[in-house]
Amino acid sequence: MKIGILTSGGDCPGLNAVIRGVVLKGTTTYGLEFVGIRDGWRGVVDADFFPLTRHEVKGLSKVGGTILGTSRTNPYEGPRGGAENIAKNLERHGIDGIIAIGGEGTLAAAKRLYDDGINVLGVPKTIDNDLRATDYSFGFDTAVNIATDAMDRLRTTGDSHQRCMVAEVMGRHVGWIALHSGMASGAHVICIPEVPMTIDEICTLVTSAYDRGRAPLVVVSEGFTLTGMEEAYSDKGLDAFNRPRLGGISEVLAPEIERITGIETRSTVLGHIQRGGSPSGFDRVLATRLGLHASDAIVDLAWGQMVAMRGTDIVRVPFAEALGELNTVPLSRYEEAAALFG
Amino acid sequence: MKIGILTSGGDCPGLNAVIRGVVLKGTTTYGLEFVGIRDGWRGVVDADFFPLTRHEVKGLSKVGGTILGTSRTNPYEGPRGGAENIAKNLERHGIDGIIAIGGEGTLAAAKRLYDDGINVLGVPKTIDNDLRATDYSFGFDTAVNIATDAMDRLRTTGDSHQRCMVAEVMGRHVGWIALHSGMASGAHVICIPEVPMTIDEICTLVTSAYDRGRAPLVVVSEGFTLTGMEEAYSDKGLDAFNRPRLGGISEVLAPEIERITGIETRSTVLGHIQRGGSPSGFDRVLATRLGLHASDAIVDLAWGQMVAMRGTDIVRVPFAEALGELNTVPLSRYEEAAALFG
Amino acid sequence: MKIGILTSGGDCPGLNAVIRGVVLKGTTTYGLEFVGIRDGWRGVVDADFFPLTRHEVKGLSKVGGTILGTSRTNPYEGPRGGAENIAKNLERHGIDGIIAIGGEGTLAAAKRLYDDGINVLGVPKTIDNDLRATDYSFGFDTAVNIATDAMDRLRTTGDSHQRCMVAEVMGRHVGWIALHSGMASGAHVICIPEVPMTIDEICTLVTSAYDRGRAPLVVVSEGFTLTGMEEAYSDKGLDAFNRPRLGGISEVLAPEIERITGIETRSTVLGHIQRGGSPSGFDRVLATRLGLHASDAIVDLAWGQMVAMRGTDIVRVPFAEALGELNTVPLSRYEEAAALFG
Amino acid sequence: MKIGILTSGGDCPGLNAVIRGVVLKGTTTYGLEFVGIRDGWRGVVDADFFPLTRHEVKGLSKVGGTILGTSRTNPYEGPRGGAENIAKNLERHGIDGIIAIGGEGTLAAAKRLYDDGINVLGVPKTIDNDLRATDYSFGFDTAVNIATDAMDRLRTTGDSHQRCMVAEVMGRHVGWIALHSGMASGAHVICIPEVPMTIDEICTLVTSAYDRGRAPLVVVSEGFTLTGMEEAYSDKGLDAFNRPRLGGISEVLAPEIERITGIETRSTVLGHIQRGGSPSGFDRVLATRLGLHASDAIVDLAWGQMVAMRGTDIVRVPFAEALGELNTVPLSRYEEAAALFG
Repeated sequence: MKIGILTSGGDCPGLNAVIRGVVLKGTTTYGLEFVGIRDGWRGVVDADFFPLTRHEVKGLSKVGGTILGTSRTNPYEGPRGGAENIAKNLERHGIDGIIAIGGEGTLAAAKRLYDDGINVLGVPKTIDNDLRATDYSFGFDTAVNIATDAMDRLRTTGDSHQRCMVAEVMGRHVGWIALHSGMASGAHVICIPEVPMTIDEICTLVTSAYDRGRAPLVVVSEGFTLTGMEEAYSDKGLDAFNRPRLGGISEVLAPEIERITGIETRSTVLGHIQRGGSPSGFDRVLATRLGLHASDAIVDLAWGQMVAMRGTDIVRVPFAEALGELNTVPLSRYEEAAALFG
Repeated sequence: MKIGILTSGGDCPGLNAVIRGVVLKGTTTYGLEFVGIRDGWRGVVDADFFPLTRHEVKGLSKVGGTILGTSRTNPYEGPRGGAENIAKNLERHGIDGIIAIGGEGTLAAAKRLYDDGINVLGVPKTIDNDLRATDYSFGFDTAVNIATDAMDRLRTTGDSHQRCMVAEVMGRHVGWIALHSGMASGAHVICIPEVPMTIDEICTLVTSAYDRGRAPLVVVSEGFTLTGMEEAYSDKGLDAFNRPRLGGISEVLAPEIERITGIETRSTVLGHIQRGGSPSGFDRVLATRLGLHASDAIVDLAWGQMVAMRGTDIVRVPFAEALGELNTVPLSRYEEAAALFG
Repeated sequence: MKIGILTSGGDCPGLNAVIRGVVLKGTTTYGLEFVGIRDGWRGVVDADFFPLTRHEVKGLSKVGGTILGTSRTNPYEGPRGGAENIAKNLERHGIDGIIAIGGEGTLAAAKRLYDDGINVLGVPKTIDNDLRATDYSFGFDTAVNIATDAMDRLRTTGDSHQRCMVAEVMGRHVGWIALHSGMASGAHVICIPEVPMTIDEICTLVTSAYDRGRAPLVVVSEGFTLTGMEEAYSDKGLDAFNRPRLGGISEVLAPEIERITGIETRSTVLGHIQRGGSPSGFDRVLATRLGLHASDAIVDLAWGQMVAMRGTDIVRVPFAEALGELNTVPLSRYEEAAALFG
Repeated sequence: MKIGILTSGGDCPGLNAVIRGVVLKGTTTYGLEFVGIRDGWRGVVDADFFPLTRHEVKGLSKVGGTILGTSRTNPYEGPRGGAENIAKNLERHGIDGIIAIGGEGTLAAAKRLYDDGINVLGVPKTIDNDLRATDYSFGFDTAVNIATDAMDRLRTTGDSHQRCMVAEVMGRHVGWIALHSGMASGAHVICIPEVPMTIDEICTLVTSAYDRGRAPLVVVSEGFTLTGMEEAYSDKGLDAFNRPRLGGISEVLAPEIERITGIETRSTVLGHIQRGGSPSGFDRVLATRLGLHASDAIVDLAWGQMVAMRGTDIVRVPFAEALGELNTVPLSRYEEAAALFG
């Protein structure tokens, strides 16, 4: 069998470890042949393939990024897109199936292609930890470590200057990175998309920490929306158009916190450093195991499924079950963390 | 209620985060009072207690070691030991129960004290990941990260000199640290206590990697025993007395690998650096959550149990179920990793 | 003798190591007595002093921030400011002299106080490396390491997505952090305050790197000004008022680079994480040595001077020589680095 | 001109950054042609050359080890060795000169070859910082950071168990790594080859730290020799033959300290992890600059010299001046650090 591998969507530490795991086990144990697909679904649509042997994957478990490149191309768009064209491309190159490593969008496309008759196996990739079918996916642990390390640094500055520090982390729809890095670094407030808060609630916690002699640390997901923010803006004569001009949510929060509490406040947007670089030990092991099990699944012809982590096991989950609702932070987990706030 | 907290056995990153989690939630949510017990069971026996308020635990989530001190004292030994004496000590100081943070030995003592009528709650601590009742315990992830980082470094030296590098990691009875750090760093051989190997099996894998142009990396648990080693020693006219003089198992393996394969080989014993220092994000979150749930369990009077991680949840497990067999590496997990060796 | 110590201006890794070095040597070798002065010159003006013994400074060599607190107070401002009031404060508390750890502004104030008859010794502190009297000061090496590590991470994302990444680092008036971290991480363009560049010059280098198959990395000091930027803005109908609203210089550069080159471009502002946290080995050694020599200088009554690094030696430099011109990046050093751009 | 590059002697972080610096500047600025020489002088003797273009050196500034391989071959040994044979090899392959990156031994060979008429330029490489001609060489800063990080970890274990920790670092003939990492981590005793100490002197410092409530940290260079050790051994009925069997010097010190002071003591040999892996920012900048200046020196035909760091400048030093005496730790620097011991 000849199998194509692609990585799609945002960069994530561990992608290369998955690729290595698939190829090493597939070639040495099962005698499979692999081709790399360049830049996600774009390479499928454009038939941009290249041979992928164990030589190409050597030493990759520790290397960040993806040697295959990635893109946000939708395989159903464009003149060369669609299941029929893709099936022809694969047939012409003798490719029997595809391993698609990606997040919610990638896997939804994978499911649709599978439903349209193409052999696709999924590997979940989400730095935000927003996929419900897997306990964790690789990249999340690395991101939490990077964010935690950054906050350890911010705290010393906060302490020295008796300032409030606001740190904005990734998480457009779910607050896992904020929850874990905030818990790990001893944040006094954690603001996540799942839990609405007003600026006054935040300021009460900030002031309480300050009054106990601490330099308040506020950790906020990029996707957090302040309750009443629209109104606050219109009160200040600013409209929706102005808002993105002010930058991320942390850059909205910091001046408001300073204004209301009177405590000098600074914001930092961690940004892209959270998703690059060498993966943590946890992520390397998880990604490698997902890759190894993806090779097993290929041999079992388990198309239309994805490999996933449950407890300490790697299992298979049908696409139909895996997708749909996002893995949001349950209120119980937020309240657990909130017991540390005040 | 007034609760004593102790840490017992070897140092482990995350101990302070547990203490902080217990005390913060216990004081602010439940109004509990805490005392620190110095140096594990020794402090119980000697009634060496001191007040532990939220002030003492501030900033501790990132701090390695234990502010309580630790020892390997057995609470049933010595003239002041035994359940009766301990019960009197606790009563005299108005202590209603003890949270014991420790490994197999500590928890066995905790169980015995509980069976003898003392209120004890356990928190599992094992850097080796050898406790069956919890999916993971804090400290293990940090140790894997440290070992993985060290092996990334060893590999560049191996590659530059075309040498075989042997790295010895912790794991007296179980091979989890070797398995995970070996998998994470792309080891060509992993030797763990659970899986017997002969020197010839090891050398075959070393030579195979070398012949593919790689600098072989051998990761070995300190508790690994080479099959046929006794005989090998007597062949060389060495007796049992000499063996410990040669240092750890890696220092036995390295010269043998060099002799048999002809490949220059160096060994490194990672040693104590694996168990010290600031915990990883994963371990800080896990340890903090165990601490928070320990406070809940105290309020529920869930004595005779320990808090543990199952999947992504924190649960309670009775001592009777938690102890006994060690959490060894299952053969399936070893074989999974071994698919990467050759 | 009784000596006060203060830290003033922005947080910087190594401040605590200086304090520890001063106090340990001063107490054990010379029998000096120390008081900590809270929050820089504010504490001098407000007579906010506390005893500083070797107990207070234990374990501080690795701790980021400053246990003394810091502020940007000018000792000559306010009703309680000025040399006369300060002299009275010091006399009333029996303080014979002050060690002031700070940057250009702090040291200028120190010089003025010294000229007005107060015993002051300076220790240079500049994360930007902008002081001419010392080869390096502590904090700079740590900042370069943090920035370099961040860029290693950004590069994997750039490579995976074939994007141009723009990283903004500290450096308001001098480009040392950009120069060193850019050189260390293999940047394709480095933009510093000392060297004017047009957007077209930058884009030529970006395109050239891209055409060689690299994901271009642009490192820019916060203080860099684009030649012709004013004109560019007015061409787009934006005025000076809008500019700060767009955030840092990297947030100006990134969309311009994308627009001109057609290469997808993302920016990251490293911000406060560059100045917090545990110091590097180099900075701990340098800071500790400056502290030790500051104690020696006190005993020699070398008031009106600062300790500084020259080659591998610690020397003394009179305030009069130390201040004035900033330590800008010489053109030769920039051209040296620019040989790597294309 | 066609230039060969070799790396010789022990692995050292920054070797690849030098190679990259030489090749990038040499090709783009000067139009030089380069060949890589495999495994140090062995490749010169065996004429083991391969083309080295800017493509081969891309991304190397952060990569540990050396892409050229290294060995400890002496170019004057063996049937194909000697200046005459080497000159023929170079001529046959059209190689006009050699850049030799290495330590004292490598540079001594380089000097002899230069004296025998071969064009050689040196780049100093010494992780131990034992070369007198350069203020620092690359690799040393990285080693100090790794050792310092390890000691931060050891200290938490020492503190938790109230143990004395003995850490053995590299440094066969000079104590720079011990001096700097010991100073950086707040060691209570530093033992270096340059300064003789008796076990009683060490134990006095250990006990003094312990009595102040500290967990004593002893940092020792591998090349340190205990005054009176021979006698101590013969007192215990051990002979010289037994000594190496006991492992490194730390493994000699630890049990003696424990025996004499009664304080539980553990030793750790940091070993090979100190010389591998990604270089620090400082080392990347220094190594890159040495590489850039080596290219300049080639164009200037500055054969028989080495590039070196003096203050913040890169200079040229004739071999004749560069070699000979090692760069030992001056007593003044040791005494400076010793002020922190007690």
